[in-house]
Amino acid sequence: MSNSISVNGRDFLLPTIPTVGICLDGTSWEYLAAAADHMPNLQRMIRQGAAGTAHSVVPSFTNPNNMAIATGVPPVMNGICGNYYYDPESGEEVMMNDPSFLTTGTLFAAMAEAGQELGVITVKDKLRRLLGHGMKGICFSGEKADQATREENGIDRVTTELIGRAQPGIYDPELSVYCFEAAVKLQQAHPRNLLYVTTTDFVQHKYKPEAPEAIAFLAALDRHLGELDALGMVIGITADHGMNDKVRKDGSPKVVFAETLLAAAGIGSRVILPITDPYVVHHGSLGSYGTVYLADLDQTDDARMLLEAAPGIELVLSREEAAEAFDLPANRIGDLVVLSDQHTVIGRREDWHNLSVVEEGLRSHGGLHESEVPLIINRPLKPGYALRLASGQARNYDLFDFLLNGLAS
Amino acid sequence: MSNSISVNGRDFLLPTIPTVGICLDGTSWEYLAAAADHMPNLQRMIRQGAAGTAHSVVPSFTNPNNMAIATGVPPVMNGICGNYYYDPESGEEVMMNDPSFLTTGTLFAAMAEAGQELGVITVKDKLRRLLGHGMKGICFSGEKADQATREENGIDRVTTELIGRAQPGIYDPELSVYCFEAAVKLQQAHPRNLLYVTTTDFVQHKYKPEAPEAIAFLAALDRHLGELDALGMVIGITADHGMNDKVRKDGSPKVVFAETLLAAAGIGSRVILPITDPYVVHHGSLGSYGTVYLADLDQTDDARMLLEAAPGIELVLSREEAAEAFDLPANRIGDLVVLSDQHTVIGRREDWHNLSVVEEGLRSHGGLHESEVPLIINRPLKPGYALRLASGQARNYDLFDFLLNGLAS
Repeated sequence: MSNSISVNGRDFLLPTIPTVGICLDGTSWEYLAAAADHMPNLQRMIRQGAAGTAHSVVPSFTNPNNMAIATGVPPVMNGICGNYYYDPESGEEVMMNDPSFLTTGTLFAAMAEAGQELGVITVKDKLRRLLGHGMKGICFSGEKADQATREENGIDRVTTELIGRAQPGIYDPELSVYCFEAAVKLQQAHPRNLLYVTTTDFVQHKYKPEAPEAIAFLAALDRHLGELDALGMVIGITADHGMNDKVRKDGSPKVVFAETLLAAAGIGSRVILPITDPYVVHHGSLGSYGTVYLADLDQTDDARMLLEAAPGIELVLSREEAAEAFDLPANRIGDLVVLSDQHTVIGRREDWHNLSVVEEGLRSHGGLHESEVPLIINRPLKPGYALRLASGQARNYDLFDFLLNGLAS
Repeated sequence: MSNSISVNGRDFLLPTIPTVGICLDGTSWEYLAAAADHMPNLQRMIRQGAAGTAHSVVPSFTNPNNMAIATGVPPVMNGICGNYYYDPESGEEVMMNDPSFLTTGTLFAAMAEAGQELGVITVKDKLRRLLGHGMKGICFSGEKADQATREENGIDRVTTELIGRAQPGIYDPELSVYCFEAAVKLQQAHPRNLLYVTTTDFVQHKYKPEAPEAIAFLAALDRHLGELDALGMVIGITADHGMNDKVRKDGSPKVVFAETLLAAAGIGSRVILPITDPYVVHHGSLGSYGTVYLADLDQTDDARMLLEAAPGIELVLSREEAAEAFDLPANRIGDLVVLSDQHTVIGRREDWHNLSVVEEGLRSHGGLHESEVPLIINRPLKPGYALRLASGQARNYDLFDFLLNGLAS
């Protein structure tokens, strides 16, 4: 029997020690630094293992990064470049939550196929469906922990037996902590060879790194990290993206309403904001990445110049340039891709957004300034991997390459 | 007796274990990666200690970075922002090799004052004079190893007794290796509490990272690194800057001749290229940083726009903007500061440069694309330091802060 498998052109050794990959949604180094004194287990991992900064997928959104981690490859190969895309033929905005939009299989499915015991735990159920696609094993979300069945999730009685209490609500920071606790208890009750746990960034959207609420949240996660470590697991931690304030000096959201801007110059457009999801309380669908479909392609140059000149817009690329620069599927992005700066977000038009949800401040992501994320492994690395990490060449979607192929023996 | 000293506003613990700081001139991660298989000692340091990427001083030149490392502070505080500056009052271009241009003391001088045994070894003698300024202890250059005296250098008979052979020539890559060998032999014969060794980048100017000559050079340094490690020393390695090809597709140097460009628009200027030094064979005085003194300040806006529009120019800043952005002394930079891109250098006018020395290619530095450098420590770090390094917040001139204050106990 081979001791490795090939997935999407990359080879992965089968785990010899139970291994857990963790995606801390929206958790930049700033958060880990601010909470450092309250994360003794993470500090020990950094000291005893290896830590560095990795590049995320751009757009720096949750689903593209989680799916890149799960498949080991970027959106151009796996198809997932946001929560939404626009189908010009049907004229419809299509939600990419359905696994049918995945254009490759996942490492998880392939590992299960190779006889490994897999576990995947998410906060939101929409992401569970994508991550668990085609995978035999245990895969459930905190959001619907009480509805897990053997048929659908590979496990039942999660709340009543495994964890012993009902899950918190979807907007309760405790739900991410609950998922970490579930990972520990799953590993104790039904040991997995390979486990993936991904949190949600409700806390980071709401609180700055130095806020007591953010520190308390990470301190709670750290306690469970310590438990996973004590079980002898190989642990790797990364993030899908960082998070920045997106406000003016007076605290009001700093938004470039792109459809409005273009319409004022007589340019018809549909702006797709792929951060949009049913959980709008986080961000009001406002992030630092948008993609523009133009009514008239003859106006492309004018549109580009107008957008480039707008204060807060950092980069405007053609479809081809963006596909090339960020490894995106050209058929799922617009005629232009627009990125805003560290403190600006992109909107459609004012009346399309429910701005009341961001009245008290807006922290969001999606652009280049949220695309540098931590990568931390609790074991020393092989020379080549140590060097890739130290020299800033690692991607967050190399997580399982590092965990399975990269450990010093 | 206190166990720490304060230098330029920063506190440093006295070394409790013999400690060596090393600056590998012009050695980016690309060089260390290409030579990885031939640097087993460096690989062990990375694996057992900590490694990451640090920011250099900009301009990414040798002297500003060495002096920042030696003083622990940037050019705005230590005064050294290049090899040359222009004194508008006297109308003279002034070479900043003389220690009188240093506006602060060094960590080395302060450590010696506190009773520590110091050692500083450089390749070029011009840098030896700056680094050793005001310092009691042993300080000599490879270039003038045979001329070292007890009075001037704190040691004599370097070639005849300490090393047992004459030094190679200034353009021989072996001279840097010779300095590493000298460090090992010095430590064996006259143990130092604190040692600083800095090489020269002749090899990196001439050879790409994957060239056999570059790999052989680094392999030779690595053998001596292993000897320093075997002596039980705390070792920290960084670089002053990286190195990039600065050529067109046909291999010819890609130069923006700034004085010529401005003169064509009727703008009189003097462009100072602070990379200029007596060792022009390296680079023909062509780097990616220049600073412009204008004959008529009313033409500042025009000059700025012209330079910004020149292909290959990446950034043009006013004196005030540059001083602020790069912590430079405003009185030693021009009216404008100009940075060129990864593959472009800045010249004055064609006839000023001896372009024959770069006919066969040009690799150089000075700009933003050479300002990310390795930082490697052969011991585990305290949590806060590990986090600073992993999160990309370290500066190369934090080297001795990491070595003296940052080690895990």
